[in-house]
Amino acid sequence: MLIVMEARAGDEAVRRVCDEITQMGLTAHAIPGSQRMVIAVTGNKYRVDCDHVRTMPGVSDVVHVTHPYKLVSREEQAEDSVFDVGGVTIGGQSFAVMAGPCSVENRDQTMRIAKSVSEAGARIFRGGAFKPRTSPYSFQGLGEEGLKILAEVREAFGLLIVTEAMDTETIGLVAEYADIVQIGARNMQNYSLLRKAGRLNKPILLKRGMWATIDEFLMSAEYVLAEGNRRVILCERGIRTSANDNGHVLDLGSVPHIKRVSHLPIICDPSHGTGQKYKVPPLARAALAVGADGLLIEVHHAPMEALSDGPQAITPTDFDTLMNDMRNMAALLHRTC
Amino acid sequence: MLIVMEARAGDEAVRRVCDEITQMGLTAHAIPGSQRMVIAVTGNKYRVDCDHVRTMPGVSDVVHVTHPYKLVSREEQAEDSVFDVGGVTIGGQSFAVMAGPCSVENRDQTMRIAKSVSEAGARIFRGGAFKPRTSPYSFQGLGEEGLKILAEVREAFGLLIVTEAMDTETIGLVAEYADIVQIGARNMQNYSLLRKAGRLNKPILLKRGMWATIDEFLMSAEYVLAEGNRRVILCERGIRTSANDNGHVLDLGSVPHIKRVSHLPIICDPSHGTGQKYKVPPLARAALAVGADGLLIEVHHAPMEALSDGPQAITPTDFDTLMNDMRNMAALLHRTC
Amino acid sequence: MLIVMEARAGDEAVRRVCDEITQMGLTAHAIPGSQRMVIAVTGNKYRVDCDHVRTMPGVSDVVHVTHPYKLVSREEQAEDSVFDVGGVTIGGQSFAVMAGPCSVENRDQTMRIAKSVSEAGARIFRGGAFKPRTSPYSFQGLGEEGLKILAEVREAFGLLIVTEAMDTETIGLVAEYADIVQIGARNMQNYSLLRKAGRLNKPILLKRGMWATIDEFLMSAEYVLAEGNRRVILCERGIRTSANDNGHVLDLGSVPHIKRVSHLPIICDPSHGTGQKYKVPPLARAALAVGADGLLIEVHHAPMEALSDGPQAITPTDFDTLMNDMRNMAALLHRTC
Amino acid sequence: MLIVMEARAGDEAVRRVCDEITQMGLTAHAIPGSQRMVIAVTGNKYRVDCDHVRTMPGVSDVVHVTHPYKLVSREEQAEDSVFDVGGVTIGGQSFAVMAGPCSVENRDQTMRIAKSVSEAGARIFRGGAFKPRTSPYSFQGLGEEGLKILAEVREAFGLLIVTEAMDTETIGLVAEYADIVQIGARNMQNYSLLRKAGRLNKPILLKRGMWATIDEFLMSAEYVLAEGNRRVILCERGIRTSANDNGHVLDLGSVPHIKRVSHLPIICDPSHGTGQKYKVPPLARAALAVGADGLLIEVHHAPMEALSDGPQAITPTDFDTLMNDMRNMAALLHRTC
Repeated sequence: MLIVMEARAGDEAVRRVCDEITQMGLTAHAIPGSQRMVIAVTGNKYRVDCDHVRTMPGVSDVVHVTHPYKLVSREEQAEDSVFDVGGVTIGGQSFAVMAGPCSVENRDQTMRIAKSVSEAGARIFRGGAFKPRTSPYSFQGLGEEGLKILAEVREAFGLLIVTEAMDTETIGLVAEYADIVQIGARNMQNYSLLRKAGRLNKPILLKRGMWATIDEFLMSAEYVLAEGNRRVILCERGIRTSANDNGHVLDLGSVPHIKRVSHLPIICDPSHGTGQKYKVPPLARAALAVGADGLLIEVHHAPMEALSDGPQAITPTDFDTLMNDMRNMAALLHRTC
Repeated sequence: MLIVMEARAGDEAVRRVCDEITQMGLTAHAIPGSQRMVIAVTGNKYRVDCDHVRTMPGVSDVVHVTHPYKLVSREEQAEDSVFDVGGVTIGGQSFAVMAGPCSVENRDQTMRIAKSVSEAGARIFRGGAFKPRTSPYSFQGLGEEGLKILAEVREAFGLLIVTEAMDTETIGLVAEYADIVQIGARNMQNYSLLRKAGRLNKPILLKRGMWATIDEFLMSAEYVLAEGNRRVILCERGIRTSANDNGHVLDLGSVPHIKRVSHLPIICDPSHGTGQKYKVPPLARAALAVGADGLLIEVHHAPMEALSDGPQAITPTDFDTLMNDMRNMAALLHRTC
Repeated sequence: MLIVMEARAGDEAVRRVCDEITQMGLTAHAIPGSQRMVIAVTGNKYRVDCDHVRTMPGVSDVVHVTHPYKLVSREEQAEDSVFDVGGVTIGGQSFAVMAGPCSVENRDQTMRIAKSVSEAGARIFRGGAFKPRTSPYSFQGLGEEGLKILAEVREAFGLLIVTEAMDTETIGLVAEYADIVQIGARNMQNYSLLRKAGRLNKPILLKRGMWATIDEFLMSAEYVLAEGNRRVILCERGIRTSANDNGHVLDLGSVPHIKRVSHLPIICDPSHGTGQKYKVPPLARAALAVGADGLLIEVHHAPMEALSDGPQAITPTDFDTLMNDMRNMAALLHRTC
Repeated sequence: MLIVMEARAGDEAVRRVCDEITQMGLTAHAIPGSQRMVIAVTGNKYRVDCDHVRTMPGVSDVVHVTHPYKLVSREEQAEDSVFDVGGVTIGGQSFAVMAGPCSVENRDQTMRIAKSVSEAGARIFRGGAFKPRTSPYSFQGLGEEGLKILAEVREAFGLLIVTEAMDTETIGLVAEYADIVQIGARNMQNYSLLRKAGRLNKPILLKRGMWATIDEFLMSAEYVLAEGNRRVILCERGIRTSANDNGHVLDLGSVPHIKRVSHLPIICDPSHGTGQKYKVPPLARAALAVGADGLLIEVHHAPMEALSDGPQAITPTDFDTLMNDMRNMAALLHRTC
């Protein structure tokens, strides 16, 4: 941490800041510059809360050198987190494809799509039973009935189930049915929910908020790890920008960035990340090429009948073609798809 | 709603879309253009879900004409919502100032700040007992103990209390103590929480998410009204942009925008909206000048000792000066402060 | 400047960085932290180019403490820049209103609007003769013919003229006719144009690019001052964000920010900053309340006949009302309008 | 085009808008809705200027159905633009790699890097002689001396040259030396420069502004084509977002988007698009996988000695490895690298 004093700050102000640092159990190094004094702070392993220093007389700015996250960092664990979920490896050389409809709409639709994604080679099935929707008048999901249908899918096709938990009251119920519990982008900073997720004995798929910096994204993962659950799968799903005409921008550069600073696996969601089905296959290929650990893809056998997000769902036929492409490219990149 | 067909779409595709519209109980008007067919849809009072139409063969785009919100709109209620909260008028000619510390830290700090903001003329006291923090290692609030201190403030100074509810499990508890229940920016799209807020018999202060469009903001308010609670106070608190070096941009233009399309009152939070105390007084003045219905301001008697957000808190002395400025300007603008 | 070394960087890497700093004529202070070495650099008055240090082995990050601008900074000149343009004071207690049509369309339209804004009390007339338009098929301005009409306006009404220069080839011509030469938002980083502006003997009105950080904005002003022209008027005109449904967000917080770090005057353009006429009067009031030094406002007697930007132009009648409001508020704020 | 009337607009207002449309030579179709009248406009092949209609009494909004660009659109030319530049094919199945230093610093540096990129298999050499820099105090390029060095590179290694033109005064000089003339991101809306580029007999490499929507990007290309020069290569180079901690986000989704609506080739610049060399190889692979037509990459034999942008330059050795990877992946994707 570096404390930049104002040009006009006197010796007294500098002394008081140094005293404060010392009282925090850290070491202050006052360095006189040509215009202003700078106080370097050492002794902290991770970023320390120092808003109060920022408000002290004569302080112009506080610059952090260390990042704010701990347990999710490469400093904490140098090697990649690799974990097994019901026989499927997440992370490492493995490339995990999770596919299925946006919403579980009914038993027939769900079983039909599950059959096709299973035949195409996916091992993990996605489908929402609790749906966060912008409008209170939109379809909100089948709730527990949807979870039961997902359980049938697991039974029938041996697929693992990933599905979203929307609040602290139902996350326990979701975890009973799911193999992986998803926390959606809009809930990325719902800290009560993150804490409960951290006490589950199920892996968590945490989606990046569409406004979130990578530091904030990792801090939300930190909430889960801090409660004891170390099996977190990050998911890049597109950020909102001012330069995009329709929908979001899938930030593929976040993959090498996160790989550099964190040991957690990260997958990409080109369906929500683009909102348009014609962009899904090229961005799925790009996600593999950039080094992601997997994909989350929306597949629907009849997108025009989908109760949510039909425009971004690809058909089972397109998904089958995509899986073939992915396997070929994965082989080239020494990944197992 | 306007459905734009692709240039190459044939008669059959157009006919099928028109049939679909008819089956939805709406009326389709096919209009041949020089390059492509356009189908105008009438008969809907508000925006209809039409993702499935977007995925029909030959459809290029769907353009909405009506906005997605209903109960919050000026069409639903032409005159401003004005309501009384414990003797204080919100909306209309009234300009309501809510002030206090970011967090309730302890009884002494809270009573001391409450005394000063009360003497300066504020009628509503803010202070967080449950705090959403980016880091799991930061101070998370005193919880119910904090709520009890807030109840003491009400008793001692006759101030109304506004404080944040973070999740569905504790919102009921918060509502027992608060006069106004705040839903924070990070929870703006926590729909489970919004629904519970909609069933409370307390006014809701809903803060705009730092990524949210105004339509999304109003849709979140719609969730509350749809459950029966019509007393929602909107709060502009700054949005995140790529062009801002430190912190957020307070979007004051959202005030006339929202006033035009919605009947709900809207206040501004220049403390979170800027993150820096030197910007708070000028932006507070600007908020009044632009037509906002009030302010949410962080005040701390010793910002450097604040457990959260000290850098954006102004002192009681500065707040007193600001209140005088606001009263003078309010008189000029025919508002009661 | 602070150089953060990687955790695994050895003594040799640290020594080489310190040597490099020394060779640059600066002083290196190596400070051992609990995880990594940090090297503080002193001896530079302003920010130094150090991209090459960033690429040295073992270097993790370089953090700047000093800002990159010099001549525009408060360190360079503590008191506000106040200057006279043809009898009108810019900066200080003065509040300067510049008004007129987006484009000079013809002599009659221009003279008519000029008469009305002059009668309403404006002293500076705006109008574009060279127009940067998104489409090559839109009206591009009258060119020199437009400049001649502007000269007539000055002659007839004693108004000063501000008009835009679009390129290095015509800026000299524009400067012959204009009292203040405008550089538009799209050209904010057209460095060739900025350099030519810096060699003119006319004040420059520099508009902020809709993507630009405040540091970048000030660096563009620095280009003008570095060439010798110290009379620069900054203009906040709205930035683009992902959270805004229609148009731009006027960043009024930039006014106190810039006032704190720079001595240059700054005005606001609520017409381009909002794009909608109903937002212009409230944001004009807010600009005055936040501490801006003036306004740039589009006025048109027949907005629906305007050849450009009609939707954001207010009528002469509305402008007259606005000027009255501004004078009343200015008096309260001890400004002269 | 669809004109949405206000709910309270009367018959007279509707009639006047319809008359205006008719006078523009277009056809108006008034469609009564449940709340408001909507007027569909047909007869226009491309988007028409209609700001004046937006300001007519009773008009609430104008919604465009057609896009604003013409010559760059797929409607204008259904098949991909493929063109030859000195024996190298741009577009179609070809994947073109352009590589070299950010700046031409001196003859030795330039020849040395040129030799290595040529040996690695690149056919086009990049290097800036005129450099747009945020600071007036940074290295601004060697100017014509740099162009002469680039001419030597072409002579010595048979590489084609792409280099940037910064203003209307020097673009002619640049075109004398370059095989492809680059227009940088900051000049994307420098319309005077675009028009001059449109009159050159050299292909133009047009970089996307870091704030620009895809429509705006294509409209800038439209300026070049409208002047007669149809050989434009688009370049995605990263956009600025609020969610990115350090630098820009390379918007790879723009590639399938642009391929869908325009016939022009599009390449990606992962060096500027990320600003950090460790991200360059993964994003270069992703650009190929997403369907781009080529790459623009910064290579420097001694990044720490580079006079500009060293942190994002990769070494010749890394570039050689990258070229091998690209060739393997290109073969899989049926592209020629």
